[in-house]
Amino acid sequence: MTERLDDLQIDGLKMYQNPEAFCFGTDAVVLSDFACVEKGERVLDLGTGNGIIPLLLSAKTEAAHITGLEIQEESAALAVKNVAYNSLEEKIDIICGDIRKMGKLFSPGDYQVITTNPPYIKRGSGLCTEDAKGIARHEIKITLEELLEKAAKILIAKGRFYMVHRPERLTEIITEMKRVKIEPKKTRFVHSSENKKAILVLIEGRKEERSEMTVMPPLILLDEAGEYTAEAKRIYGIGEK
Amino acid sequence: MTERLDDLQIDGLKMYQNPEAFCFGTDAVVLSDFACVEKGERVLDLGTGNGIIPLLLSAKTEAAHITGLEIQEESAALAVKNVAYNSLEEKIDIICGDIRKMGKLFSPGDYQVITTNPPYIKRGSGLCTEDAKGIARHEIKITLEELLEKAAKILIAKGRFYMVHRPERLTEIITEMKRVKIEPKKTRFVHSSENKKAILVLIEGRKEERSEMTVMPPLILLDEAGEYTAEAKRIYGIGEK
Repeated sequence: MTERLDDLQIDGLKMYQNPEAFCFGTDAVVLSDFACVEKGERVLDLGTGNGIIPLLLSAKTEAAHITGLEIQEESAALAVKNVAYNSLEEKIDIICGDIRKMGKLFSPGDYQVITTNPPYIKRGSGLCTEDAKGIARHEIKITLEELLEKAAKILIAKGRFYMVHRPERLTEIITEMKRVKIEPKKTRFVHSSENKKAILVLIEGRKEERSEMTVMPPLILLDEAGEYTAEAKRIYGIGEK
Repeated sequence: MTERLDDLQIDGLKMYQNPEAFCFGTDAVVLSDFACVEKGERVLDLGTGNGIIPLLLSAKTEAAHITGLEIQEESAALAVKNVAYNSLEEKIDIICGDIRKMGKLFSPGDYQVITTNPPYIKRGSGLCTEDAKGIARHEIKITLEELLEKAAKILIAKGRFYMVHRPERLTEIITEMKRVKIEPKKTRFVHSSENKKAILVLIEGRKEERSEMTVMPPLILLDEAGEYTAEAKRIYGIGEK
């Protein structure tokens, strides 16, 4: 396995990534900024990959504990290594397994918060191979519907669900969240620049809450000159020490 | 009836408004910009009020014909007066009536495009009186569900539906559109400034289309200095002649 050690620009965190599998990108970083985790809460990250979201959340929030679940053995092993490298074993657990078969592992009430950066692409859409990248990007091992059904069972009442996804699937995301009674409460759209269509949607759902959506200010990554905006710099931790 | 003559800043159009009823605002102007009407198409504007949307669309598009339907007699009379004042009788029809009772008046296939700036507030939410302003703002005479059901019946297959509404109701808008088979295809969120939450959502639906959403660039009305942005000026027709 080819690995590369990257600096996360926050709290001195570093992580190993495998460029041949799936490297974290804007998606995980903006989701970690969007997710609101209160002091003492327990968080479950579904499809954690190499553990980027637990790592970032451990630095950005006062979560009591974060569990990362990953179906692919190689990615999960890398996540375990990343947790150890940053000495975060007390705060972060990595479990290698299939959420569809883990009804007994997680019981309702275990987690106040679920985060997820799931595969974006429907099975059968576009070129798809069943390798590590394919499984991370395509709905091979789990569909959005299955993921939401599982999340709804694990979350406590009023528990919060945070997801990053593609805007193209917004209608399905909203109707499926509604169906499993995770009410969409807040969205933020991510645009590469102010005059471009959205490339990502961030969405917060709350279990069994009343229907009322807030559409947050857009997250614009680059200004007219092609430089990071102040908001993007804040989120990426650029220029901080 | 107290009336005021306002300049629409496009094609020399002017219109009478009754400040005691409901005056057009940003909502109608941004919807008229968002709606895509091809040359020769027939448009129906549901809840046309004093006729602002038909007037703006007649100037901004090459629609063959535009019908404005309004339930309130006084508003409809003002719309008729506005059409006549601008000599647009050949292009715009105003009908005073209740869409819920007009199944026979509009038959499927009559219109390629439906536009609407409906009442935003659910019945029973907030203070509500059954006067002209109340009926324009609250779902007294029609609910979102009823409006969408009617729109779906009138539109031809692949016909387009354009609505401006409040982002708070986005989940309901999307699930109800989906239910009546007007597939949400495009949204644009309107923000007073870049760092504020959205104040309006513009949405395009297409009858019996496949699910795929485009989230357009945000529409930001004011810049950091509190001046209109270039995009807002373009839409309001400020600085044009």
